[in-house]
Amino acid sequence: MPDLSTATKGRILYGGDYNPEQWPEDTWLEDVRLMKAAGVNSVTLGVFSWSTLEPRPGERNFGWLDRLMDLMHANGIGVVLATPTSSPPPWMGHLYPDTLPVDQDGRTEHWGGRQHFSHSSATYRRFAAAITEDLAARYGGHPALTMWHINNEYCTFDWSERAADRFRIWLQRRYGSLDALNSAWGTAFWSQGYGDFAEVHTPRHAHYMKNPTQVLDFRRFTSDMLLECYLAERDIVRRATPHLPVTTNFMPLWFGQDAWRWAEEEDVVSVDIYPDPRDPLGAQQGALVQDMTRSQARGPWMLMEQAAGPVNWRGVNHPKPRGLNRLWSLQAVARGADAVCYFQWRQSRQGAEKFHAGMVDHAGEEGRVHQEIKQLGAELRVLSEKVTGSHTDNDIAILHDWQSWWAGVQDGRLSSEVDYPDVLKAWHRALWEAHLTTGFAHPDHDLTAYKVVVVPQLYALTDAAIDNLLAYVRQGGTLVSGFLTGIADEDDRVRPGGMDARLRELFGIRTLHEWWPLDAGEHAECEGSPGGFRGTLWSEEIDKTEDATTEAAYKGGELGGLPAVLRRGRAWYLSTLPEPDALRELLARVAHDAGVRPALAGLPDRVEAVRRGDLLFLLNHGRESVTVEVPGAHRDLLTGEAGTDRVTLGRHGVVVLER
Amino acid sequence: MPDLSTATKGRILYGGDYNPEQWPEDTWLEDVRLMKAAGVNSVTLGVFSWSTLEPRPGERNFGWLDRLMDLMHANGIGVVLATPTSSPPPWMGHLYPDTLPVDQDGRTEHWGGRQHFSHSSATYRRFAAAITEDLAARYGGHPALTMWHINNEYCTFDWSERAADRFRIWLQRRYGSLDALNSAWGTAFWSQGYGDFAEVHTPRHAHYMKNPTQVLDFRRFTSDMLLECYLAERDIVRRATPHLPVTTNFMPLWFGQDAWRWAEEEDVVSVDIYPDPRDPLGAQQGALVQDMTRSQARGPWMLMEQAAGPVNWRGVNHPKPRGLNRLWSLQAVARGADAVCYFQWRQSRQGAEKFHAGMVDHAGEEGRVHQEIKQLGAELRVLSEKVTGSHTDNDIAILHDWQSWWAGVQDGRLSSEVDYPDVLKAWHRALWEAHLTTGFAHPDHDLTAYKVVVVPQLYALTDAAIDNLLAYVRQGGTLVSGFLTGIADEDDRVRPGGMDARLRELFGIRTLHEWWPLDAGEHAECEGSPGGFRGTLWSEEIDKTEDATTEAAYKGGELGGLPAVLRRGRAWYLSTLPEPDALRELLARVAHDAGVRPALAGLPDRVEAVRRGDLLFLLNHGRESVTVEVPGAHRDLLTGEAGTDRVTLGRHGVVVLER
Amino acid sequence: MPDLSTATKGRILYGGDYNPEQWPEDTWLEDVRLMKAAGVNSVTLGVFSWSTLEPRPGERNFGWLDRLMDLMHANGIGVVLATPTSSPPPWMGHLYPDTLPVDQDGRTEHWGGRQHFSHSSATYRRFAAAITEDLAARYGGHPALTMWHINNEYCTFDWSERAADRFRIWLQRRYGSLDALNSAWGTAFWSQGYGDFAEVHTPRHAHYMKNPTQVLDFRRFTSDMLLECYLAERDIVRRATPHLPVTTNFMPLWFGQDAWRWAEEEDVVSVDIYPDPRDPLGAQQGALVQDMTRSQARGPWMLMEQAAGPVNWRGVNHPKPRGLNRLWSLQAVARGADAVCYFQWRQSRQGAEKFHAGMVDHAGEEGRVHQEIKQLGAELRVLSEKVTGSHTDNDIAILHDWQSWWAGVQDGRLSSEVDYPDVLKAWHRALWEAHLTTGFAHPDHDLTAYKVVVVPQLYALTDAAIDNLLAYVRQGGTLVSGFLTGIADEDDRVRPGGMDARLRELFGIRTLHEWWPLDAGEHAECEGSPGGFRGTLWSEEIDKTEDATTEAAYKGGELGGLPAVLRRGRAWYLSTLPEPDALRELLARVAHDAGVRPALAGLPDRVEAVRRGDLLFLLNHGRESVTVEVPGAHRDLLTGEAGTDRVTLGRHGVVVLER
Repeated sequence: MPDLSTATKGRILYGGDYNPEQWPEDTWLEDVRLMKAAGVNSVTLGVFSWSTLEPRPGERNFGWLDRLMDLMHANGIGVVLATPTSSPPPWMGHLYPDTLPVDQDGRTEHWGGRQHFSHSSATYRRFAAAITEDLAARYGGHPALTMWHINNEYCTFDWSERAADRFRIWLQRRYGSLDALNSAWGTAFWSQGYGDFAEVHTPRHAHYMKNPTQVLDFRRFTSDMLLECYLAERDIVRRATPHLPVTTNFMPLWFGQDAWRWAEEEDVVSVDIYPDPRDPLGAQQGALVQDMTRSQARGPWMLMEQAAGPVNWRGVNHPKPRGLNRLWSLQAVARGADAVCYFQWRQSRQGAEKFHAGMVDHAGEEGRVHQEIKQLGAELRVLSEKVTGSHTDNDIAILHDWQSWWAGVQDGRLSSEVDYPDVLKAWHRALWEAHLTTGFAHPDHDLTAYKVVVVPQLYALTDAAIDNLLAYVRQGGTLVSGFLTGIADEDDRVRPGGMDARLRELFGIRTLHEWWPLDAGEHAECEGSPGGFRGTLWSEEIDKTEDATTEAAYKGGELGGLPAVLRRGRAWYLSTLPEPDALRELLARVAHDAGVRPALAGLPDRVEAVRRGDLLFLLNHGRESVTVEVPGAHRDLLTGEAGTDRVTLGRHGVVVLER
Repeated sequence: MPDLSTATKGRILYGGDYNPEQWPEDTWLEDVRLMKAAGVNSVTLGVFSWSTLEPRPGERNFGWLDRLMDLMHANGIGVVLATPTSSPPPWMGHLYPDTLPVDQDGRTEHWGGRQHFSHSSATYRRFAAAITEDLAARYGGHPALTMWHINNEYCTFDWSERAADRFRIWLQRRYGSLDALNSAWGTAFWSQGYGDFAEVHTPRHAHYMKNPTQVLDFRRFTSDMLLECYLAERDIVRRATPHLPVTTNFMPLWFGQDAWRWAEEEDVVSVDIYPDPRDPLGAQQGALVQDMTRSQARGPWMLMEQAAGPVNWRGVNHPKPRGLNRLWSLQAVARGADAVCYFQWRQSRQGAEKFHAGMVDHAGEEGRVHQEIKQLGAELRVLSEKVTGSHTDNDIAILHDWQSWWAGVQDGRLSSEVDYPDVLKAWHRALWEAHLTTGFAHPDHDLTAYKVVVVPQLYALTDAAIDNLLAYVRQGGTLVSGFLTGIADEDDRVRPGGMDARLRELFGIRTLHEWWPLDAGEHAECEGSPGGFRGTLWSEEIDKTEDATTEAAYKGGELGGLPAVLRRGRAWYLSTLPEPDALRELLARVAHDAGVRPALAGLPDRVEAVRRGDLLFLLNHGRESVTVEVPGAHRDLLTGEAGTDRVTLGRHGVVVLER
Repeated sequence: MPDLSTATKGRILYGGDYNPEQWPEDTWLEDVRLMKAAGVNSVTLGVFSWSTLEPRPGERNFGWLDRLMDLMHANGIGVVLATPTSSPPPWMGHLYPDTLPVDQDGRTEHWGGRQHFSHSSATYRRFAAAITEDLAARYGGHPALTMWHINNEYCTFDWSERAADRFRIWLQRRYGSLDALNSAWGTAFWSQGYGDFAEVHTPRHAHYMKNPTQVLDFRRFTSDMLLECYLAERDIVRRATPHLPVTTNFMPLWFGQDAWRWAEEEDVVSVDIYPDPRDPLGAQQGALVQDMTRSQARGPWMLMEQAAGPVNWRGVNHPKPRGLNRLWSLQAVARGADAVCYFQWRQSRQGAEKFHAGMVDHAGEEGRVHQEIKQLGAELRVLSEKVTGSHTDNDIAILHDWQSWWAGVQDGRLSSEVDYPDVLKAWHRALWEAHLTTGFAHPDHDLTAYKVVVVPQLYALTDAAIDNLLAYVRQGGTLVSGFLTGIADEDDRVRPGGMDARLRELFGIRTLHEWWPLDAGEHAECEGSPGGFRGTLWSEEIDKTEDATTEAAYKGGELGGLPAVLRRGRAWYLSTLPEPDALRELLARVAHDAGVRPALAGLPDRVEAVRRGDLLFLLNHGRESVTVEVPGAHRDLLTGEAGTDRVTLGRHGVVVLER
């Protein structure tokens, strides 16, 4: 089977989305000159080219793309060819309104932007298949072609009648019978019993809270419909070029797509990463996405999009200060990326993204941004040989599951202050700041390889997943779980006792009397291990079992003396979210006790250390120089300089050390 | 005529909504065991059972309900039987889209939640009547049946074409002629003159501010249409069981329903009360609803719904700390309730309300919540004999009127900071904190029985209501009024001079030059009685008449020296809303001068004292023990303990003293 | 050609909108008595009279208006007659739904408010023309008629199918060909290439950011469609009464209307001014509108609407403290107004505006508001002879352009914190607080008369406008420009280098590496001229040319040492927005160096001095008395008092001095 190495051939891919139909052809020649000077070896063509390729229904306009493919090949630049199906031409919505999605308020999403396609429209799917067929036929044998890129950032919901038709079919497949659906959705409550599948619709605008399992199934359905769209196109290109890898780019932690499931269908897992350059935790949030993508890829992965400077979709869009683009790019390499790419090569002068940075931005060749792009290209070339194909390992896995997230985010839950991604980020941050390299896993995965498994929050768990967790601990693993875990089954049916009985037993919870969610800004004072600390977001009124230990207890208030951190053997349960320092100390201690060690001991704050293969990456996220103790002799791959026992990193500095 | 005593038969009703169609029948037996152990003597069945009772149009499925009714009867538990018409089955919206309401933006409210019925739909009304007829015929003679409960929390607006058809008929009845409508609505302004009733519509989405009297009439129409729905079902069950009382449960201070008018059509006035357990004023807000419901009932009333723990519809839903459920339940009894019920008996495991507490919650029988439910059941049994049927009296009445509220809450008013319910609550709080038991009255009611009448704000008043107020003062009553009273007539036509001339004369206002609304957080410094204080929300530029006294004046600023508190004889006028302490002191003084005394003298803060019949309830809303002076010998009904001169209340403690 | 002097005939017009169809006819007589007592000499009739004039399609009801016109004439009060086309009668929307506008979410804007007309509806235009024809025919020769007022506050957008039809025609006219449209809109990006004009629509609800040039053109189209509506009616009345002036009233800085273009089509430029009486900068914001309107009128202009007291459309609507109405009215006269009018004469008792003040408000004749109205009427009579027709001059022009504003306010821009009107206001404020009288100009205007030209922000500039600016500086002018100027061309195509190359050269910018927008509340510390100060909203990473001077530099941070204020000769560039004091000092210095002097030297804070013709207006915006040095002998026109060297102004006092 083809994979990322098929495309890299030992070189880190460097380049990005290239939308040359925006420019006259003489600009293309200038682009090629600049690409070669910058070490660019890969471009993605065709992402938004549908109206250019098919200006009228069924017409084909390939000449410009022929010339581009040839031009790239002639200059040694590989092409990742995209199907253009994320943005249909205006004629499609105009002639076939059934191709347009409808939002939950009944508003049609018209053309004029992008992603205005209904995943459930047979017409859309037919046109998408046809253009994909023709692209595969025409370019499958082109020597510039290195990879297929299907669609772009799948991200559309659809509440239309068409979606409702498909939703009914999807439900019939899932449940087999109306009785099963009525049981799973709990329709005996609120008089929602369905007497005919025809009565079921997407969860449209309603007077009051919607049925949560209907909403959950609609989220599952959405991910599955988008996946059907992806698979249809993937299968077409795979038939034409079985030797070439196929990908589609994820948006990190995008709510609508079960990326664990999707990744199984990709040859290359790729992702877009856009932390806010102003965010003090930007580097950690990048690391989280990198760790998750690496875990989905089970090896090297592709950074499909990042920005060389500011994006244009935040309220205030900050540029990247000098050195930050290089730092975050090399961080991705340290954490397993074999491709470092951007949206987009040349910044648009028109349209909705003209203030989104490019590798060549408005300031042009002499601008600071492009000068840094050139420097990075040269460095990636130096690293390529010793990096590509190697692995970044982790002893700790964080469990994450879209299905559980979907089940938990509903109207009518106990606290809207609990934001699942924020909780996930808080736990990853604690480990990242403890200099512990972590990966992610699905609750059904084989966990035996990990010394520590962490569950920030898995509201809904299947029986099988609970079996898996219990077996993991039974076999000697250390498990640390946050609150709101194991509350519901896969139908969002609350487990008797308010939390699965076996999990309660595992953690030493006799009775879970009440959840005590905390208000925004409210804290629960705690004492015990790790010292005194403050809990946030949540607390609980728990009776523990006798064989469990209260590692930290609430102090004062209604819950005084009750367990905030509960431990029974190697199973830890946190009924609150400790503030960052406390969570870091707690997890560092648990990890240490389980035999996990950081990539390098004694690291200063703001310096990240990651081992990839035989190399040690040190990254200085601070703006001040810092000296790091690195025992023994070593050599920095980037500069070739040898050193002993210590290395100094300048502002945003990076070294890649080999022994 | 049947009333609440018909159902109580001398026992305080204890129980709640029971939705057993969610559970297998063996759970029903377990439920009965727990109900009996907890002293439950009443359950409400059928509230959300429509799709179970009528799974397909016209079908009937009564067997399960037959068994339940029999089961309840066999165990001595009375049944309040609900018509299931608040939540139509999915087939109804699917087959008859005209049964669905439409919001003011034109969005249809679909099934999948609840209350998705158009009050104006003839189809809906036909199906509702049919199922009500069949329920009445089948269960009217059942020995378990104690009361009828029509629909549930009527609360739907409808801007649809169907509603527009009914609105036109309603308007023709109200006005008789187009000329009268045009005059009442002031359509000569903004070119809104109607030439045909067919041109009139519900106040749908418009470019700019809507006609306020059209909006006002639409609110009246909405209350009346919902009332028509209620009356149609009430009349059906009343024909079947003229000996049994009928109710429908109000949501407290719900905007859309003129509960004064509705209460006249009920045999039992019932209400749902859900203060936030975290709200420091939760007890006062409960008291307000209790006082209002008692006033509407003119005697004992039914607490139809409360939560044993957290609800699930706030942003953050807090549980009830130990003792609070009992405290607030006994507070309701003190203030006239002869029924203490909950939503719902057993907490749902599925659906939108699975995180709303139950009397048996997820923690089950051994959980703290259910243990407290059991304790309360036992105590209510002890109180029943001496409590049921007795009255809680009040010398003070607060005037409240939905019609006036509807008229006042419009776009284009002077200050959106003035929130009518908040003003109402502020005045009730002042009296509650002064330990003065108050009731509510409508401005048309006979007020002669009251020593003090308080008008927090009645923006619109009819001539008859003004007559009533003037007569009350003339006959020796003490009247205290806040600003924005008597501004408009019943068509929302501003009275000449900006405030009714007779009211101005009553209070001693010569000229009301300008209203000076205050910004959020802004204060108007005042001096005089009660000492220096700060006004909030509002101030006024007034010339007083010579025979009026400036009891407190604005200090400095544009209004320096002008009256903040104006008095002419026994008529008081407040042109600002004093901060809580000042309003409490002022009202306490006025009440004292009018001969009103608290239920007990010398009460500490946070202790509430209410007399019901011959009993004195003392309720400690604080978390600390407190000793209360109660002169003479007394006995606590709950414990049977006798005492003299003082009694000590623990955290959230309650005693019910008889001499 | 007729102009404002045709109507004033040497008297300052004083009066306002009069909507007598709200009142019985005996109130009309009372109104006339009060008007004459108050010096009212002009009323506007008919603004909202359509349903009265045409109660059913095609019917005419003119009798009431005949009587009113005669009554006004008999009492020496001139009539500005309005076409009633801003608020169609209910029958129109009911019978002709195509006359109703549709918003971008697809919601129809119904009757029941006002301005519910589709500018693109042929039906609406036909009815509007017919009623205008008939009004012109009936009253064109009436001796009371002094001016025509077309519609009222044009302000409607329309995304309907009808609007789309007209938009396509408008685009065909603008671009000639689809290729030109595709090029201007940059449709090669995001697959938006149009293959047929039929595919183009208004920018309706979409999944993601809309095409910015489509949005820009839709804004141009909206202004043009409204202008077509205006012109059609104007031409009708002009044919009937070529000797009488025509106007329509602008809302200040209303986004949807290119008032530069519109003003060219008016005989009289009129405007509505409603600063918040509580706004500490209310007087400055009034001055801004007055300066802009005077510049559009190129001479005397008409204050069509202001409020004698509170308005009713803010969250909290404050009255005008004693003296403020007079002060702000005389400020308008000082800045060129020859008409001081109000909405409305008598405050409504019904409808949406019943809490908007009137010249006779709810308090009536004896109320403070009306007493001040009478005083002002007397004073305007005194001023009339020496004021009407005279000019207020300015040496400084601020450039403003709706087209540039429209281009710059788009989704996907770098900072949503940058609000164009706020930037414009900040620059005007700096000059106003420096006591420098300024006007406004369009970037295409002849600028040679100005000593200083100021560009707060002109995001999009045509080549011709850039030529104009360059020529202005070349010819000796001083130009001061803020950031985000010259970024794009008229199609919103970013200029190479991120800013027009010639402008970069003008200001001495070699490379504009990056924009560094600032977060809300963030500051950029700067040092240099004017001393140390803080920049707000924006900063930039710029390499300057050698011949440019860094007048102030960023201090510390990523941009330390780079130019915050850059100067090359007489061309100044500010890459940040200095805080108010710093911007005032900088502009005062630049103006002084360019030979500009305030109307009077040595003015205290809060006192405004403006010269109109030979008169010097001094206005005290403070609440404390203040003495102003005015060298030499002078006489106050208002009081007739003579003085020497100084004059004292009481709270909100005004003197109008002649030598």
